[in-house]
Amino acid sequence: MADGEIDVVGIGNALVDVLAQATDEFLRAQRLTKGAMHLIDEARARQLYDAMPPAIEVSGGSAANTIVGVASFGGRAQYIGKIRNDQLGEVFRHDLRATGVRFDVPAATSGPATGRCLILVTPDAQRTLNTFLGVSAELGPEDVDAGVLARGRILYLEGYLFDPPRAQAAFRTAAEHAHAAGRYVALTLSDPFCVDRHRAAFLDLVEHHVDILLANEAEICSLYQVRDFDAALRAVRGHCAIAALTRSEKGSVIAAGNEVHVIEAHRVSEVVDTTGAGDLYAAGVLLGLSRGLPLPVCGRLGSIAAAEVISHVGARPRTSLAKLATGIL
Amino acid sequence: MADGEIDVVGIGNALVDVLAQATDEFLRAQRLTKGAMHLIDEARARQLYDAMPPAIEVSGGSAANTIVGVASFGGRAQYIGKIRNDQLGEVFRHDLRATGVRFDVPAATSGPATGRCLILVTPDAQRTLNTFLGVSAELGPEDVDAGVLARGRILYLEGYLFDPPRAQAAFRTAAEHAHAAGRYVALTLSDPFCVDRHRAAFLDLVEHHVDILLANEAEICSLYQVRDFDAALRAVRGHCAIAALTRSEKGSVIAAGNEVHVIEAHRVSEVVDTTGAGDLYAAGVLLGLSRGLPLPVCGRLGSIAAAEVISHVGARPRTSLAKLATGIL
Repeated sequence: MADGEIDVVGIGNALVDVLAQATDEFLRAQRLTKGAMHLIDEARARQLYDAMPPAIEVSGGSAANTIVGVASFGGRAQYIGKIRNDQLGEVFRHDLRATGVRFDVPAATSGPATGRCLILVTPDAQRTLNTFLGVSAELGPEDVDAGVLARGRILYLEGYLFDPPRAQAAFRTAAEHAHAAGRYVALTLSDPFCVDRHRAAFLDLVEHHVDILLANEAEICSLYQVRDFDAALRAVRGHCAIAALTRSEKGSVIAAGNEVHVIEAHRVSEVVDTTGAGDLYAAGVLLGLSRGLPLPVCGRLGSIAAAEVISHVGARPRTSLAKLATGIL
Repeated sequence: MADGEIDVVGIGNALVDVLAQATDEFLRAQRLTKGAMHLIDEARARQLYDAMPPAIEVSGGSAANTIVGVASFGGRAQYIGKIRNDQLGEVFRHDLRATGVRFDVPAATSGPATGRCLILVTPDAQRTLNTFLGVSAELGPEDVDAGVLARGRILYLEGYLFDPPRAQAAFRTAAEHAHAAGRYVALTLSDPFCVDRHRAAFLDLVEHHVDILLANEAEICSLYQVRDFDAALRAVRGHCAIAALTRSEKGSVIAAGNEVHVIEAHRVSEVVDTTGAGDLYAAGVLLGLSRGLPLPVCGRLGSIAAAEVISHVGARPRTSLAKLATGIL
């Protein structure tokens, strides 16, 4: 690997997760749709937090979780996202750097607080997300360093970035810088509701800016407004160079040109918490692609990382993914 | 229960725990004594945090954990401790209030940040504590509300309060208010090293101000500078009205006047994390005493609460203790 090269540069909403157990009655009383991601403003975040049971705080953010996974595989990883100079911002920065991720974006010294995601876990193990973007919504083109993108073999963007309007501009700027340097651009669709909110923009981007698309079954069906996975697979194959599509316990499918690879899910003794499964699958696939590994191997790395993260609570790996991938990497 | 009466009022260092897994090598490199509580200043807290692996944040503080346990049993519980008006202070206040604990002390608007305890968990499940007291060290007599103490059947104080010098004064003031109103004063010794640091003050307090003493085997042996439990038990019986002494898997002993009750540990299928065992044992004993229950029943409530908290990660109960104590309370 050339000096100064980076395997994956990730851009996303920098968030700290605030996790609490809640009842179905609580979701109803708060008028929340179970399993969905709700965007909330500061006043609502305060009101919901006041009503919430005791919680724990843990660094999150979809692309940040992925980038931590890349670093855990031993990859060179860098993150771009916006935090404030407050305690939650310090927590977010510490937890990234402590895993070996490079994260240099200076903390904002004014504006809203560091963003957070209030996560309510119901007894059925489903998670209902309530995101107050805070200062993460102020990420703009000026935060995107062309030099960093030129050194990153793959630029990875989270679909959630389409919610804050300035981030969309940052997204396009970043994709242009990466392509100008001959690098790949990868995108995850993040959430079927997010796809619903921004379908036209997503379709345009996938066609013109995205080389590698990551999505789960619900998201890819939402993008093409089709009902079944096979129809979505047909649609995406004509649309972007590589698509890696996850199907929970059915494993995943990676399609590229004429190739279609079906990858089995990695077995786990007990599924404890599915949060982060998609984020960590993306980590394995992207690390594999950045190292030029064959597509089925990339998929296998994704499955290994996803299996690790669903076997415990939390969206970031607890075990070294490099160790779990011994013999493959 | 008379209107406005409170079962237990707890006073302690208000801390947010910052929990990370660490290796023995890390402890050695940082010159930390495994299993001990180290008091650290802000510069050292920053340096240690920078060096630490990724962490999670969760509200802690020994007396605060106990008070949450009292509330979980359905008791009326109030907490006195010092936080700053910062994000960790908000987290601390939220997590107390969300369990039904009353906590009215206003957040300081200047001075050090909310206190935190950097906890390193080694593979042998031992915990090494590094406490930056922050603003919690500024708790003073002016924060102690005589009216609250007059309504609280039991005033509960953590031994760790002896480290910050102003808190010692708050401690004495609080004990005087409680006794003036005919209430009981309870103390936990907190930590054998804390007892070492303040032995003379502890002995004086136990003799003159404490009605109910809680301690584990190491702490009570340290207080009386004896080597075996029976010697410590003999010493404490002449020294304070009620002593509740925990012995890990051997259960506990409650001594009061001529009575000595040996209480079995409550069985758990797996000990996951012993943090908070003493704090929650205290919750059961104090709630039982505040309700005038027989000593063996108080001990049983303590064992139930301790068993709940050691069966999962974290020092506060996840299950309603009132439900676990159905038929007893």
